[in-house]
Amino acid sequence: MFKPKISVILGNVGSCSDRYCTGGYSEPLTVEEMFERVKSIEGVTGVELVGTWHISSSNKNQIKTLLKEHGLQLVSIIPDHFGEAKWKNGAFSNKDAGIRREAVEVTKEMMDIAEELGCSLISLWPGQDGYDYYFQADYIKERTWFEEGVAECCEYNPDIDIAIEYKVKEPRNRSYPSNVYSTLLMVKEIDMANCGVTIDYGHGLVAYENIAESIAVLKKYGDKLFHLHMNDNYTLWDDDMIVGSIHTIPYIEMFYWLKRTGYDRWISTDQYPYREDGRDAVNESVRWMETYIDVVNRLDDNKVEKIINTGNACEASAFLRELLFK
Amino acid sequence: MFKPKISVILGNVGSCSDRYCTGGYSEPLTVEEMFERVKSIEGVTGVELVGTWHISSSNKNQIKTLLKEHGLQLVSIIPDHFGEAKWKNGAFSNKDAGIRREAVEVTKEMMDIAEELGCSLISLWPGQDGYDYYFQADYIKERTWFEEGVAECCEYNPDIDIAIEYKVKEPRNRSYPSNVYSTLLMVKEIDMANCGVTIDYGHGLVAYENIAESIAVLKKYGDKLFHLHMNDNYTLWDDDMIVGSIHTIPYIEMFYWLKRTGYDRWISTDQYPYREDGRDAVNESVRWMETYIDVVNRLDDNKVEKIINTGNACEASAFLRELLFK
Amino acid sequence: MFKPKISVILGNVGSCSDRYCTGGYSEPLTVEEMFERVKSIEGVTGVELVGTWHISSSNKNQIKTLLKEHGLQLVSIIPDHFGEAKWKNGAFSNKDAGIRREAVEVTKEMMDIAEELGCSLISLWPGQDGYDYYFQADYIKERTWFEEGVAECCEYNPDIDIAIEYKVKEPRNRSYPSNVYSTLLMVKEIDMANCGVTIDYGHGLVAYENIAESIAVLKKYGDKLFHLHMNDNYTLWDDDMIVGSIHTIPYIEMFYWLKRTGYDRWISTDQYPYREDGRDAVNESVRWMETYIDVVNRLDDNKVEKIINTGNACEASAFLRELLFK
Amino acid sequence: MFKPKISVILGNVGSCSDRYCTGGYSEPLTVEEMFERVKSIEGVTGVELVGTWHISSSNKNQIKTLLKEHGLQLVSIIPDHFGEAKWKNGAFSNKDAGIRREAVEVTKEMMDIAEELGCSLISLWPGQDGYDYYFQADYIKERTWFEEGVAECCEYNPDIDIAIEYKVKEPRNRSYPSNVYSTLLMVKEIDMANCGVTIDYGHGLVAYENIAESIAVLKKYGDKLFHLHMNDNYTLWDDDMIVGSIHTIPYIEMFYWLKRTGYDRWISTDQYPYREDGRDAVNESVRWMETYIDVVNRLDDNKVEKIINTGNACEASAFLRELLFK
Repeated sequence: MFKPKISVILGNVGSCSDRYCTGGYSEPLTVEEMFERVKSIEGVTGVELVGTWHISSSNKNQIKTLLKEHGLQLVSIIPDHFGEAKWKNGAFSNKDAGIRREAVEVTKEMMDIAEELGCSLISLWPGQDGYDYYFQADYIKERTWFEEGVAECCEYNPDIDIAIEYKVKEPRNRSYPSNVYSTLLMVKEIDMANCGVTIDYGHGLVAYENIAESIAVLKKYGDKLFHLHMNDNYTLWDDDMIVGSIHTIPYIEMFYWLKRTGYDRWISTDQYPYREDGRDAVNESVRWMETYIDVVNRLDDNKVEKIINTGNACEASAFLRELLFK
Repeated sequence: MFKPKISVILGNVGSCSDRYCTGGYSEPLTVEEMFERVKSIEGVTGVELVGTWHISSSNKNQIKTLLKEHGLQLVSIIPDHFGEAKWKNGAFSNKDAGIRREAVEVTKEMMDIAEELGCSLISLWPGQDGYDYYFQADYIKERTWFEEGVAECCEYNPDIDIAIEYKVKEPRNRSYPSNVYSTLLMVKEIDMANCGVTIDYGHGLVAYENIAESIAVLKKYGDKLFHLHMNDNYTLWDDDMIVGSIHTIPYIEMFYWLKRTGYDRWISTDQYPYREDGRDAVNESVRWMETYIDVVNRLDDNKVEKIINTGNACEASAFLRELLFK
Repeated sequence: MFKPKISVILGNVGSCSDRYCTGGYSEPLTVEEMFERVKSIEGVTGVELVGTWHISSSNKNQIKTLLKEHGLQLVSIIPDHFGEAKWKNGAFSNKDAGIRREAVEVTKEMMDIAEELGCSLISLWPGQDGYDYYFQADYIKERTWFEEGVAECCEYNPDIDIAIEYKVKEPRNRSYPSNVYSTLLMVKEIDMANCGVTIDYGHGLVAYENIAESIAVLKKYGDKLFHLHMNDNYTLWDDDMIVGSIHTIPYIEMFYWLKRTGYDRWISTDQYPYREDGRDAVNESVRWMETYIDVVNRLDDNKVEKIINTGNACEASAFLRELLFK
Repeated sequence: MFKPKISVILGNVGSCSDRYCTGGYSEPLTVEEMFERVKSIEGVTGVELVGTWHISSSNKNQIKTLLKEHGLQLVSIIPDHFGEAKWKNGAFSNKDAGIRREAVEVTKEMMDIAEELGCSLISLWPGQDGYDYYFQADYIKERTWFEEGVAECCEYNPDIDIAIEYKVKEPRNRSYPSNVYSTLLMVKEIDMANCGVTIDYGHGLVAYENIAESIAVLKKYGDKLFHLHMNDNYTLWDDDMIVGSIHTIPYIEMFYWLKRTGYDRWISTDQYPYREDGRDAVNESVRWMETYIDVVNRLDDNKVEKIINTGNACEASAFLRELLFK
């Protein structure tokens, strides 16, 4: 029985802003209120926190208490390498050695907090590590700095996994860990057992990835899928919508491959419900994920494997139609 | 009860080639064999033919016989404005007045044949009308030629509808009737009751259209949806795959809007089953379409309208999940 | 001699934020400081203001003084229909009649201010008018509301032009005035002499438009190009980068068609220089635009027209290479 | 002085067809006629041949003579793994072991011919190795078969380099060697000195790659850029247009990075001039490439390196504008 654990990135249930509506699409919520909201969603047993925004050395005890009170596990910390002006030209790959140092220090600090709070995963999202314009970057040097910085963090505490989350663009026009392959190359270069990859469903779609294939690729090259962020989009931009609101069949294939590759780690929602009630939008995502998990558990694996091994598109089509519409 | 009629573009059940595998991915079939194949697909009652490829003045009697023998209605003729080298720089908008004249004459000839065979629709696919390079085209003059040519055809026989099928690119890098709005502008300029639009599902996706919205737009600006071509793709290219193999929810919305706007014309498959058995691939598309038609007929319209009027994405999400997975 | 007037959207020289770096990538500037910066850019003689952000009934006198002191003309006002939470579900097409009313009132208020400050253009950017999810919108009703609202504004003061700026997505996943054709359809339906279109270069690219063609299309269907916003991007997203930083030849063709169609209105920069000094980034855009204007003024028009009329891609290629590299 | 050698894929100067105009856009040419045409293009000293289409065991002596007569070097052979129906479900990754065997044998045969004709490069284009539909492929097994097959070829003759050409899609909807990173992962897994990568400029663009960066990445991870195919496109599809007809600045950066990384192998044109005279279209590409090579040779490297090291986009912009327009 395939039963991944489901968690929520805390900010998902809060307020969102964008570059136009800078004051936010709804009233801001406190960390306590967001914990309450997460707790109210059936099936969620963990929470993922962003450094600076939700967790720091100064509030870690409060967070510890909140986790305990709400019976939620701390699944991962995402160090803030993207949310403050100082990171604007990159964190680990910044041309300024001082900022690169700071990127490493911030990560180590979050690793310490994670360990203290019983959490064994850091999900790195180096959103500012990349470039915008032609002739602006030294692709070799900056990529190497990136790998060296992450390697230093991995070495710092082998008990804490570090998963790099890739994204082809935004906020930079071009990112270094751009797709699953680019990131795997980095992971292989870093060459540490505790270094792996976070797939964000929507980031993969924008990179024209079929997520089931990305999962398989991570399995093949060293079993490196460490974490998952879930949402949906129209395939051209990281719209961060409700899971299952746009796609259907690709989720079935994706969850099937999670089952097939024995994935037993966490799956977090990662949304930006600008105009929806954040709690309800995350709840919808969880309901869809549970539905898909249920679907792939009920599948006749022999039948599926036969279809995959034959590769007949018409058989796959008939199988899926029957699955969806009896 | 919403019950659109289903037809097949004859070549869909035949062999396909592309620019690499120029000799074809499978053995060619005769027109008779293709009629047999179409006939074997349950639920199909009409057939759509391409000029030159399937129908001409010289074989029209044979086609008449084949239609009768197989109990199939001729739904539409697509004049050949794309499949011969002479059209390479455009048909109706070609810089050469002689070719423009020929584009009109070919259309009129197909209108005559259509009328003779009891068919009231010409679906124009001006695939070569556009341009490739910067500084290659006079956008105003060529667009005007296009409109004038089509207008002349429309005037030629008001009993035959002419539906322009848009596509943003391929075979030209940029086409004049590129999306539903561009084509509607032309239709309004042509200003004839028998001039309308063919939506090809995949062409719309590539233009980042939501097909349900495109259907609505055609309703709003003059009830101009005259015909539909169906297939599926990954949203970036006209992959011409089996209907329903990639998307699910957008088809439900699309068929709902067909029902809502009272669409009662034909729906043709339009696929390129390069590697599949053509007959089976088309059969799969028909099965998916019947499924979706059945789904929207069973919908509680009041509930759907309430969701649309409220616009709450979480309610829409819950409604669709329940619809799909009980 | 083709000599369009160049202006700057005031905020372009200020600080930018995005959904991650919500506090801004640099220190905020006052309106006075931004006026100073605009003034420092050679060749700029006008400024464009955003309602709420830069101009309102309460500060219009201050703005009047600033315009006078800096010798800048007020080129256009962009009413705020996108920057506050109340617009989150649309302005002119909002399901709530009260918000629709407010969208009209805000526009009229800005028209009054514009007239008072000697400005004859309102550039509408209905960024929130659209939808995100399937089954969330009544495409016919909402599009009609949009047209009715804008029509009411146009009728309010025929001396003020109203130009609708289209964009295929962002901040909504799907916008109603999505591309040049969609917007022209609305403009034709509104049917007022003072209703036209603003092309944003980058928005057009994201809609897979060739901007030279979009300019031609607006000329053809009623001479409806009222205003231009300039920037550059990688064609898949509205990156709002420095003009000329990514593309070259398409700008030459675009400025050629502006000259060819006799465009004599304003051209504003419209950028988001997140990581650059705003003043310098806008200055670069102005330098590139002046360069391109100079290039098309020096072109041998007979030669260009011959190339366009012949349509030989190799000749166009040789011509452009010589133009760029002697 | 950076002086890469320029070659032409023979078929580029011939006739093209596509899935609509299956009979070809112009009259077919013989191999002799195509050699004549290539020879007529100034600056071209090599030719690249496609297996089956241009070269086989039966005509290798004729080719040898043609090469000698025209003073052209055989730069590379592209074995036919894509142009016949038997490859429709893949070559090296085909589910059928017999086809996989054949893919290897065909490659070895071409390696033998290459060696005999004094050519040390095989450029593999596994265009059919991938999949189309969900649930159609075993991504792990098929990717492994692919690597095993190529490895066997590499081992067969270490004196012949084998370069894998990636492409994100077409003719399959999804390819295994999809982008530069995916292919590098395969190359590292194969782990042979004679295994590397061919960059096709247009394939890279469609994968949202900045080709200068792709070149840098291949340098960093083992100096694996073995070959280059050149063309241009609108970034969304492999339009295979004249080099330099769409983009400008990215070519300057690309050739700069070729120089910077010491690239001294061949650069071939790879176009599909459907509607142009093939010889003229290829000639244009060569003229543009020579122009760019000349441009980067005249660049003040210190200045460029300073810009790259500073990363100031406005300085890069001013530098490029001056370079292009003095």
